[in-house]
Amino acid sequence: MPAAHAPSPRTTVRRGAARAAYDADTVRSVLSAGVIAHVGVTTDDGPIVLPMAYGVRDGAAGAEVLIHGALANAMMRVGESLDVCLTVTIVDGLVVARTPFHNSMNYRSVVVRGMASAIREPDAKLAALRVINDHVTPTWADARPPSNSDLRATLVLSIPLAESSAKVRSGDPIDEDIDLDGPHWAGVVPLETRWGRPDAARDLRGNPPVPPGVAALAGTDAHPSR
Amino acid sequence: MPAAHAPSPRTTVRRGAARAAYDADTVRSVLSAGVIAHVGVTTDDGPIVLPMAYGVRDGAAGAEVLIHGALANAMMRVGESLDVCLTVTIVDGLVVARTPFHNSMNYRSVVVRGMASAIREPDAKLAALRVINDHVTPTWADARPPSNSDLRATLVLSIPLAESSAKVRSGDPIDEDIDLDGPHWAGVVPLETRWGRPDAARDLRGNPPVPPGVAALAGTDAHPSR
Repeated sequence: MPAAHAPSPRTTVRRGAARAAYDADTVRSVLSAGVIAHVGVTTDDGPIVLPMAYGVRDGAAGAEVLIHGALANAMMRVGESLDVCLTVTIVDGLVVARTPFHNSMNYRSVVVRGMASAIREPDAKLAALRVINDHVTPTWADARPPSNSDLRATLVLSIPLAESSAKVRSGDPIDEDIDLDGPHWAGVVPLETRWGRPDAARDLRGNPPVPPGVAALAGTDAHPSR
Repeated sequence: MPAAHAPSPRTTVRRGAARAAYDADTVRSVLSAGVIAHVGVTTDDGPIVLPMAYGVRDGAAGAEVLIHGALANAMMRVGESLDVCLTVTIVDGLVVARTPFHNSMNYRSVVVRGMASAIREPDAKLAALRVINDHVTPTWADARPPSNSDLRATLVLSIPLAESSAKVRSGDPIDEDIDLDGPHWAGVVPLETRWGRPDAARDLRGNPPVPPGVAALAGTDAHPSR
């Protein structure tokens, strides 16, 4: 059974604390269901937040989140470790209360804080890239493997999962007692995210089969709960 | 016709520059289609990125993004203006190339950088809250209006849209010429996000009608392109 993450001072959720969770299962469940992360760093010019693909695994030093981008990406500083915040959010619905002050959204989110460090050794970088690539669905094995120059052009960063927190809201709106006999409707509009049918590239030659990982996505919930 | 936003040094997109856009129409279109933003700030403890509801409007001083949260939210510092980065991303599909190095996602994203300042005057705060509330769909008019204490408990921040950039990727994977005669499939798996049917709260009393703004959402694309 994975160890629980103790809330650190930085990850203790201050609002809606009833919905916070620090256990590894919830954190991993949300990360598993997410498709992109928003990664924030501090620059001399102020904070910057960029959307990025990511993967998660249990590495030698513990659970970690992996992100990548070409060396030209402004966020990545070769040779340094980088203080980052990585946030994954899945919106599950619009919560319509009897008054706007109690409107909300149903969502699953995880915030990971830590120092991102580069994975440089080529085999380790390759393995990490595969984890990121296959996060949404496994396609690595059914594609042409990366070349050495592909690999050189990509920077892969690892962030420990040790300082992470989840926040989850689900269910009905929570209104004031005095509003419950009022004339206003209240409820939830669910947000459903599904993968559609694979659409072959216009320049596809021959008739290669749709890879299993791609076929498996079609029609499925993009953010399944475990 | 709205003025184009000149790319500032901070918002000049460095990767995939062919897909960058600085014109107001594209920026507004993506912001209009988004549901949540990820807002990054720098703290003494490092960067933090939190998901937040937002709204957009043309204010007296120009176009602005509005965000809100209760005074207890760690991000909001009463009495200060806050250097923020607000990012909105909509994922439209998984791009599966013939090799993982060219895998990608189809997406629409906007990055807004600027100083967030508090809107304190009660009527102005109320108007701003309505813009945020009604961003996804108009529900304000069909609910019990906020009380003075509701209003006091909420901090509303405005960020000018002046420094913003959009990045959009759509279409097929772009592979190397040498891979085009290879045996691997390539194409796109679309990601479809739709609002479901409104689901009344379990504690709803009487039989109030579903408000028009809520009924209008059901079955629609949550991130429509204009």
